Amino acid sequence: MSGALAVSLGDPAGVGPEIVAKAWALREAYGLPPFFAIGDRRSLSAVSNVPVESIAHPADATDMFAAALPLLQVDDPGDIVPGEPNLAGARCALDSVELAVGLARSGAAAALVTGPVAKAQLYAIGFVHPGQTEFIAERCGVADGNVAMMLAGPGLRTVPVTIHRALADVPTALTVELIVSRARATVRGLQRDFGIAEPRLAVAGLNPHAGEGGAIGREEIEVIAPAIATLMAEGINAWGPLAPDTMFHAGVRETYDAAICMYHDQALIPLKTLYFDEGVNVSLGLPIIRTAPDHGTAFNIAGQGKANPRAMIAAIALAGQCVRNRG
Amino acid sequence: MSGALAVSLGDPAGVGPEIVAKAWALREAYGLPPFFAIGDRRSLSAVSNVPVESIAHPADATDMFAAALPLLQVDDPGDIVPGEPNLAGARCALDSVELAVGLARSGAAAALVTGPVAKAQLYAIGFVHPGQTEFIAERCGVADGNVAMMLAGPGLRTVPVTIHRALADVPTALTVELIVSRARATVRGLQRDFGIAEPRLAVAGLNPHAGEGGAIGREEIEVIAPAIATLMAEGINAWGPLAPDTMFHAGVRETYDAAICMYHDQALIPLKTLYFDEGVNVSLGLPIIRTAPDHGTAFNIAGQGKANPRAMIAAIALAGQCVRNRG
Repeated sequence: MSGALAVSLGDPAGVGPEIVAKAWALREAYGLPPFFAIGDRRSLSAVSNVPVESIAHPADATDMFAAALPLLQVDDPGDIVPGEPNLAGARCALDSVELAVGLARSGAAAALVTGPVAKAQLYAIGFVHPGQTEFIAERCGVADGNVAMMLAGPGLRTVPVTIHRALADVPTALTVELIVSRARATVRGLQRDFGIAEPRLAVAGLNPHAGEGGAIGREEIEVIAPAIATLMAEGINAWGPLAPDTMFHAGVRETYDAAICMYHDQALIPLKTLYFDEGVNVSLGLPIIRTAPDHGTAFNIAGQGKANPRAMIAAIALAGQCVRNRG
Repeated sequence: MSGALAVSLGDPAGVGPEIVAKAWALREAYGLPPFFAIGDRRSLSAVSNVPVESIAHPADATDMFAAALPLLQVDDPGDIVPGEPNLAGARCALDSVELAVGLARSGAAAALVTGPVAKAQLYAIGFVHPGQTEFIAERCGVADGNVAMMLAGPGLRTVPVTIHRALADVPTALTVELIVSRARATVRGLQRDFGIAEPRLAVAGLNPHAGEGGAIGREEIEVIAPAIATLMAEGINAWGPLAPDTMFHAGVRETYDAAICMYHDQALIPLKTLYFDEGVNVSLGLPIIRTAPDHGTAFNIAGQGKANPRAMIAAIALAGQCVRNRG
């Protein structure tokens, strides 16, 4: 691996600093690749006793990693009280992600892992994106439709076609083009970042029983099946629409590399039901590698030592694997 | 237990006869209560070698159960070819359910367990209900809103408020009244049939992250929260709206007796992801006890000896438990 991974700490009052510190402490047990934190030093010292050493440049991180958690300091957000987010902290979190994206784009960081941010706080400082993924995509110059948000657990990968939309808006937001572009991004990502030469995509229906031939909704006939036909014509191994309720059990999961899902909870319910503590969010279709633990800031437990670092560890480990797969 | 359970065989060309025969063969291993089949003898002999004895009345079933599968024959559907459904078979299936409901209502059968039917075939003979549950509710004189379809696995029970509706129609179909009536039926059922004195209900949101305070949909604020307030005012232990993706993992499942879900797949995806082979459909709110295996006719494997009887066995066992709980 050419360089260390950049890990943004997320909101300094959330669990991000704690789980990054815990991940560093467990770096040997999990065989984690070298990484450095981007954020505020005091957010780490408030919740952890791990040694932290400031670095001036990412290139210094790899050598330091064995002895201390390398830190690239961004603007000082002032006093941090775990569990009590404020606007200065939100600015610190956003600056951290922005710096991390720049380092990953330039090659100074091998990949980007993002800690959890609080959208309500970000909106209050002028953030206009539905989430970090869309912000990162914009900073990378990639149109939203060409990015796929993959949720990955040990035995399941899901990709929602629509993401942070009210359920009432999902049926009209689904188009052949959007399904196809998300699926293409998924295929490219599975090939490039996961080393799967011929990815298999199981495409979910939207309606109960995938519409029962049009009896319970026609999106399968009018939108999803044509999208699958388009993908197949491109040589992509995609099939469906599948009944959403029966496609996530163990026997069926073995038959595909990713499930293309029509909405947020169709993708997230099976993933979090099975792998609550170790789900990783992977952004496919970007020029950079980006992963994140699939959970929020958990302000309610921040600073209490209770935060489970497994998802952050899994996100760092997966980013490292993607770096190796890209070669 | 006062009488035997009535088990309708479902579509004679589906897997129903096979899984009922297998359940009888495994009656001792699973400690199943006495039951009798309702349907066509030839649908059983086509797929199984278990001894079958015709009975003229349900009262004869209990004594016979140890030695043979008791069968109450309905109209003869003619030749049955497993995997090849026809209209005569659909009529046989419908007559079987109707007879079984009548026997359960009269007390001649202790409970009703229904085998899988094919809705496409039933519609062709004039059936107008979305499914067997609604048909049974009508025959019992109970309005649809007062029935709750519960899906039960070993570690999770879910109740969809809306059921076989296109996803696009779900947001407008959700009303305070409907959520409240389904929740009430759920509470009564958990008390009466499951022996849970003070049921705990976790109520799901509709939108991603339960709407994030209105940022991603307002149904939580306008419909679901008021329904929860109504239930709480009645002394029902209900809380939410919960983010749908994080409420089904093991740690959260322990905190409730049933999850009230807003649509079919929100309830079915977690259930079938976790308990694909052993999910049971329980109708709450009826004067009779009714369960069913939570799967379809599986015509594609009918007659090949491959059908897994675990869900049918679980449905029969659970119906027996409900009979004991009702006392």
